[in-house]
Formats: sequence, structure tokens, C-alpha cells
Amino acid sequence: MQKTRLFTPGPAAVPPETLMEIGRPTVHHRKKVFKDIYAETIEKLKEVFQSTGEVFVFAASGTGAMEAALLNFTSPEEKVLVINSGKFGERWEILAETFDLTPISLKYPWGTSASAEDVEKILEENKDIKAVFATLSETSTGALHPIKEIAEVTKKHSVLLIVDAVSGLSADRIMTDEWGVDVVVSGSQKALMSPPGMGFICVNSKAAEVYKNNPRKNFYWDLKRASKSALSSQTPFTPPVNLIVGLLSSLESITSEGMENLFKRHDLLARGTRAGIKAMGLEVFPESPCNGVTAVKIPSPDKIGSLFVGHCQDKYGVIFAGGQDDLKGKLFRIAHMGYYDEMDVVTALATVECTLKDLGERDVLGQGVKAALEVFTSRK
Amino acid sequence: MQKTRLFTPGPAAVPPETLMEIGRPTVHHRKKVFKDIYAETIEKLKEVFQSTGEVFVFAASGTGAMEAALLNFTSPEEKVLVINSGKFGERWEILAETFDLTPISLKYPWGTSASAEDVEKILEENKDIKAVFATLSETSTGALHPIKEIAEVTKKHSVLLIVDAVSGLSADRIMTDEWGVDVVVSGSQKALMSPPGMGFICVNSKAAEVYKNNPRKNFYWDLKRASKSALSSQTPFTPPVNLIVGLLSSLESITSEGMENLFKRHDLLARGTRAGIKAMGLEVFPESPCNGVTAVKIPSPDKIGSLFVGHCQDKYGVIFAGGQDDLKGKLFRIAHMGYYDEMDVVTALATVECTLKDLGERDVLGQGVKAALEVFTSRK
Repeated sequence: MQKTRLFTPGPAAVPPETLMEIGRPTVHHRKKVFKDIYAETIEKLKEVFQSTGEVFVFAASGTGAMEAALLNFTSPEEKVLVINSGKFGERWEILAETFDLTPISLKYPWGTSASAEDVEKILEENKDIKAVFATLSETSTGALHPIKEIAEVTKKHSVLLIVDAVSGLSADRIMTDEWGVDVVVSGSQKALMSPPGMGFICVNSKAAEVYKNNPRKNFYWDLKRASKSALSSQTPFTPPVNLIVGLLSSLESITSEGMENLFKRHDLLARGTRAGIKAMGLEVFPESPCNGVTAVKIPSPDKIGSLFVGHCQDKYGVIFAGGQDDLKGKLFRIAHMGYYDEMDVVTALATVECTLKDLGERDVLGQGVKAALEVFTSRK
Repeated sequence: MQKTRLFTPGPAAVPPETLMEIGRPTVHHRKKVFKDIYAETIEKLKEVFQSTGEVFVFAASGTGAMEAALLNFTSPEEKVLVINSGKFGERWEILAETFDLTPISLKYPWGTSASAEDVEKILEENKDIKAVFATLSETSTGALHPIKEIAEVTKKHSVLLIVDAVSGLSADRIMTDEWGVDVVVSGSQKALMSPPGMGFICVNSKAAEVYKNNPRKNFYWDLKRASKSALSSQTPFTPPVNLIVGLLSSLESITSEGMENLFKRHDLLARGTRAGIKAMGLEVFPESPCNGVTAVKIPSPDKIGSLFVGHCQDKYGVIFAGGQDDLKGKLFRIAHMGYYDEMDVVTALATVECTLKDLGERDVLGQGVKAALEVFTSRK
């Protein structure tokens, strides 16, 4: 017997309780039974977004929700600033180009994070910028962006801040209302501990004025239509009922743990993972790592780069993600966003140790695990 | 104890085997385990669409897939013909207006079906029409449209035929390749016996040329991008993994029953339902009823119209759909698309009989059931 364990940054692990809920008979979405579930789901999502604003649920991937956000909060030809230091920052840029915006690209090397000063400088020089597109945690590199500081700048300049928190939400802190983030996008299959199939958008009152007056003609992604349906705890089109029923179970677990405890747990797991990785003599890739996923440089990439991730999966049933695009064969990524605890980190690190030995790279058996356990036992 | 039984035309009933598959741990969509499942799912979907063309799966509702079809197969300002005789024909029209087409509306009263002659006449008079938007079974009224005959006309005039078969596919016959239907749209939560959350598009080779040369800039809905991913049994963005795993189970059931048997079963269930309804002295609403849902006029709508559907649900746990828009309180709709058999029809008819008596409308206990059983026992 070999168990399979998902350590990928989306889909990430899903609690069995959530899977069981998803497997319950489908209910009808226009009936009270669903409206009650949906109303509760939205309330709990607001808690997770830390916002009193509107929250919308789409049957879509996270990218669908990003597209919806862009279409509802920008008009063609508008100048926008896009922060791009990885695959998902790049996605904002491609979306902006696809839908006729005039994006200024604030590009950083993959693995680095944006600086609020750079954002401010560009906003000073381009008073006609309407919105800034940013990423909370860049899944492709494991880098965390300073959204709080960027929000201070966007507030000062009265431009909209639209953040992709697809993999970040509930793993890394984002205080939507307190920080003044205008639009936050997320997805189901990351730290929200659900299978893929749902995209979310959280909108504060300032941003609500923008979508309500947006001249683009939308249909499936139309937030005006969705907002009207939301008055009676409904979606305009048939929602992914079973996935939403499962999501509520995961959200109950998240909100009963409490957002502060959740951030603490993710911080602990991330610190333990990084300590373990460093104890093996490996290098964490990003300068400012996020708490949901740890991207690690594969040592001797020419020798074992193309084998590493496959070996972990085939021999130990542990599924890591590799690097994307130019980082293929150079990185592996360990997710610990959502349904993960200390012993999961131990499993991940032990697999890395065994694989390093199996592939003839180095023998550090037990060293990474020991370092992580020291982090875990030294917490107050 | 009161059981709950879904007789609504989407979401419709889902087999427990499918629900169990959906509740299995989430697999990673970029790994072999999923690619194999996805490749098999696409093969079986082609069997259901009766096409050798491309089939695309979106995390979306059926409406999302309709929007995707329209965006990939039409260009702004193009003249199109929209057949509109109910809520979903109207949806094509709204979509066409939203996305800057110039629609000619071929409007029929709700409950009636299009005639291919009318379509031909308009195409004769408007040589610049590029596409015809039609509906296989109009869910709001239970009417079946003569797609085969319409396809003969569109082929002759070399215009694209785009059919919403969201509720029709696999309940009513549509022979995509044989009839020359260019684009067929469907959804998961109807006769395909799955929960909501997936939209499908099937494209023949003639239509493929159109999307490949389409000037609209799409991202989430982009078939060019999806077609490229499909080469390696992938979707461009994270697919709804668990729902697809469940869908495969339902598709296995559908294809092992066989498409011809499937159409026969739906025909039998529909004839049984109609016979039962008529035996109670009630009237089937559409002139040419489809085989997936039976829409019935509520007798004495002023007296019991607002009570009927709620009573069936509250007292008997049987959930029918009411009428939509102007037909609210005037219709109820019994779905028998997908996971339904003869005894389900008996349950539905018995509930109608009891409710008619409970609400003081008429006492026809056993009469509708008897008529249906006669249909069922007289089949060869």
C-alpha cells in the first residue's frame, strides 16, 4: 500500500468531512435549503476576507474570477499598473492586454517581491492610472507581496487596488477592510480547503461604486446582476451546489479555528518547513516567502532537476509541484496552505530527505525533520 | 421520515455512485491520474454528443458555456438569427445584445416550437446572417425544437448553427455530426446526471475554422487556448477535478446504456408522464413536448397556482419546478432527464394526484398512475 498525499499549491489537501459533504445528494439552488447554506457561506467568506463588503461566488477557476474582477472594475483604454514577478502577476498583465487596458508593467525578477515605493513612484508619474493589480502570494515563486504597504499608497492616490489572493487568502494575512484593499479575488482549491471549481470576489464599498457604473457589457461575470441576485441569497445562474455545500464545511472549520490562529498556524508550518529545508543545505527561493507554499531550489538541477518531483511521487506518494516556465526543473514547491499540520510538514521534509539520498545528491536523513521539530516544540 | 426527491429540470437527480466518486480525495490536474480520467471523459462526451469534433469542458454553469460559444463563434456587429420561444431562447438574445451582435429575433409564443420554414425564410431575406442560435429543448416550457430540420436549412445556407442543448443532451436526440449541427452547448446538471458546475461545448470541423479565426479577444472562454491544452488532455486553467471524476462515472452509465436505449427510455418516461397527466384531466403545456421535462398547466391557477409546487415539496418531499416569469403560478414542471425510471414517474404522478386532492382541486387518485403504468407495460 502506498498512500497519496497532495502537497501542491492548488489543488491542495481537502478535509474528508468536506469531501463527504460534497458527496451528499444535490439540492435545488432556488429552494430554502440552499439559500440558507449560501447565506451562511457568504457570511463565513466575509469573515475570511475580513470584510463587510460584498462577496461573490462564481462557478469558475480562480482565473475566471480574475477575469471577472478585471472586467467589472476597469474600462477599455484605461491605464492600469500591473505588478508582475511571477506566473500570476503575468496573468494579470495578459488579462489587461486581452481586455484592452493600457497596462504599465512593474516587473520584478521571479522570486522577488514588489516595493510600495516603486508603486508610489509610478503613481506619482502617471496620475491617470485607475487601478493597481497585485498578488498577495505569488504561487509560482512562493513570494509574499507587501499588500498592506501597497494599499496605503493606492489609498493615498485614490486608485483601486485589486489583489489576486487565490492562493493567499487565509494562509497569509490580508485585512481587506482594515488595510483598504478594494477588490480581493480568491479560489476554492487552496487554503480554503475545497476542490477546484469556485472563484470568489470580495468588493469594498468604494469599489462597488466602480462596478455599478462600469460601462463594459458583461453577462456571466456581471457583478451588477450577481449583486441583485445576492439580495435573496441567490446567484444569477445555477451555482456549483455540491461544491458550495462542501465549502461551507471547510469554512466552518476555518472560522472556528479563528483567523488569528490560522495565520499563526500557517506561520509555524512555513517556519518549520524553511528551517527543515535550510538544515538540509537547500535554499528557499523567494526573498520574502509567503506562508502558504515554500519554493525550494533543487540542488544540482542539471543532474536531478528533471527527476526530483517525479521521484517523490512515484516512490513516496508525495506530490509536490515543480517550477513553472523558466523555473522548470529548478524548483520544487511544498504547499502547506489550508488543511495541513506539523506532521504533514514532517512527511514532506522526510520525503525530500529520502529523495535527495535516493538520487545520490546528499545524505541528510533526519536533519530537516529535526530542524522542523525544533521549531514546532519551541513555540509558545 | 420524509425523503426528498428532486424532479427539477436542473439540478436533476444524480446517481449515488457519481456522488461517491465526487467525494473522493481531490487529485492533481496536471498529473497522469487526472489526464487519463479527463481523456476518457472527453471520449465519452463525444459519444454523447455523437460527434468526432472537439469537446471542451469549462468550470462554469450552462450559461457560461453559452457565453463562451457566442464569444468564440461570432464577431461584433455580425447579424445573427435567434430563435426565442422561452426563457433560454431569450437568454441567447440577451447574450447577443450584450456582446454587440445584431440579432434578428424569431420569436414564438412560449410553449410553441420553431419551424424550419420560418428560419429558411429569414435566411433567404438576410443573406448576411452568419449564425443561427437555437435551443434543443426549451426548459422553461418543455418544448422541443426541430433541430434536425433547422440544421438542413443552415447547412444549405452555409450559416453556423449553434444549439443550446443544456437540458436536452442525452434526453432528446441530437445527432451533432449526422445532422450537421456546428456547435452544441450543454451543462452537467441535467440529463448528464451530475451536479452543477460544468459547461460543455462540442464543435464540428466547420465551426472549428470559425473559432480559430475569431477576432474577439477571449481569455477564460478562449477555445484556441483550450484546444491547445486539450492536445495533452488538459484544460488551460484548473478544472473542477472532483466534478469531472464524478461526471466520468455518470458518462460510463450513460454510454453503457447506449444512446439509442437512452432516447427510448426518455421517450417512454415522457409518454408515461403525459398519459398520466392527461388521465387526471390536466393539460401538457407545449405543443411539441420534449422528452426530458413535462410542463403541465396548473388547473385553477388563481386558486391553487401559488400553492401547488410548495405543497408537493412540503407534504411529499417531491420537488417540482414552477413556471418562470409570466408562467409563474400557471405551470409546474416534472423533470425526467437522466437518472429517472418508471417508478420515479409513478412517484411524481402520485404526488400530483395527492396534491390535487389536498388542495381541493379534484380527486383523481390512482388515475394518472394507472395510465402511466399502462404505457409502461405496453412497450415492446
